[in-house]
Amino acid sequence: MGLFTTPIKTLDDLFLHTLKDIYYAEHQITKALPNMIEKTTNPSLRDEFSHHLQETHEQIRRLEQVFGLLNEQASGVTCEAIDGIIAEAKQVISDVGDPKVLDAAMASSAQAVEHYEISRYGTLIALAKQLGHTNVVGPLKATLDEEKAADRKLTELSETQINRQAA
Amino acid sequence: MGLFTTPIKTLDDLFLHTLKDIYYAEHQITKALPNMIEKTTNPSLRDEFSHHLQETHEQIRRLEQVFGLLNEQASGVTCEAIDGIIAEAKQVISDVGDPKVLDAAMASSAQAVEHYEISRYGTLIALAKQLGHTNVVGPLKATLDEEKAADRKLTELSETQINRQAA
Repeated sequence: MGLFTTPIKTLDDLFLHTLKDIYYAEHQITKALPNMIEKTTNPSLRDEFSHHLQETHEQIRRLEQVFGLLNEQASGVTCEAIDGIIAEAKQVISDVGDPKVLDAAMASSAQAVEHYEISRYGTLIALAKQLGHTNVVGPLKATLDEEKAADRKLTELSETQINRQAA
Repeated sequence: MGLFTTPIKTLDDLFLHTLKDIYYAEHQITKALPNMIEKTTNPSLRDEFSHHLQETHEQIRRLEQVFGLLNEQASGVTCEAIDGIIAEAKQVISDVGDPKVLDAAMASSAQAVEHYEISRYGTLIALAKQLGHTNVVGPLKATLDEEKAADRKLTELSETQINRQAA
């Protein structure tokens, strides 16, 4: 089911909607990463993408835990934002010929994904605190910290290796 | 013209493509913000959206300066990411009935936009430094700082006013 078919009346509805949005987004990310792992020629970037794919599976499990703590069924709602970010990533990847430039493009696209998630998990934590859902703040915060760390790692790899090799 | 019709062969091509992507994105943001300014009932959020609309016009001017410094014509390329983020924002806005919950939803959507921009300007600055385009780092950094400040301001407003009023 999608909340797009149900009006969002309360802040709790908005919280649940955002949870379903990021649950859908995480699933789309698990579908997009294997192609990026296959295409990269930089071993450190491949390791980072592979590591983040494992993390994303764990983040989905954490979201299911959050749904459970709220006595809700885990389900997604189409997230046009992540669909757009991933569609753009695929387009750029298909437009790049040189494998070193492709690594730079994929690292950049992955950071756009990370920032979308940082934004959404930040919102979810603020809403959970406001709504008194203190028991779900821990798992949401654990994921937010992972997304921020992934973004920092991609910045470091881009600046120290990937962009240099592509220049 | 769009670089989607031109293969991205070099890191300079990727830099220019990302510049055109964010140039398009900034224009889309100037089209989306007036509707959000009109719909919000929170004076502080309205001020912040209005302030950011003015900033966005200045950010477009800065991008035109960057294109000029690179001896390139300022032009955009369709950015599916921002189109998706804005489409999702519009959908959520249309799904929310209560005006206080709507404010919370719009602040969250605006933060998703800010984070997209933070990601892209971060990439642009890293690429500009790598490519030796040191003369464009200043204007790009000025905008990045504004986007980060806008995101922090929205977090503060959400936590101190908007979410409380919507709960």
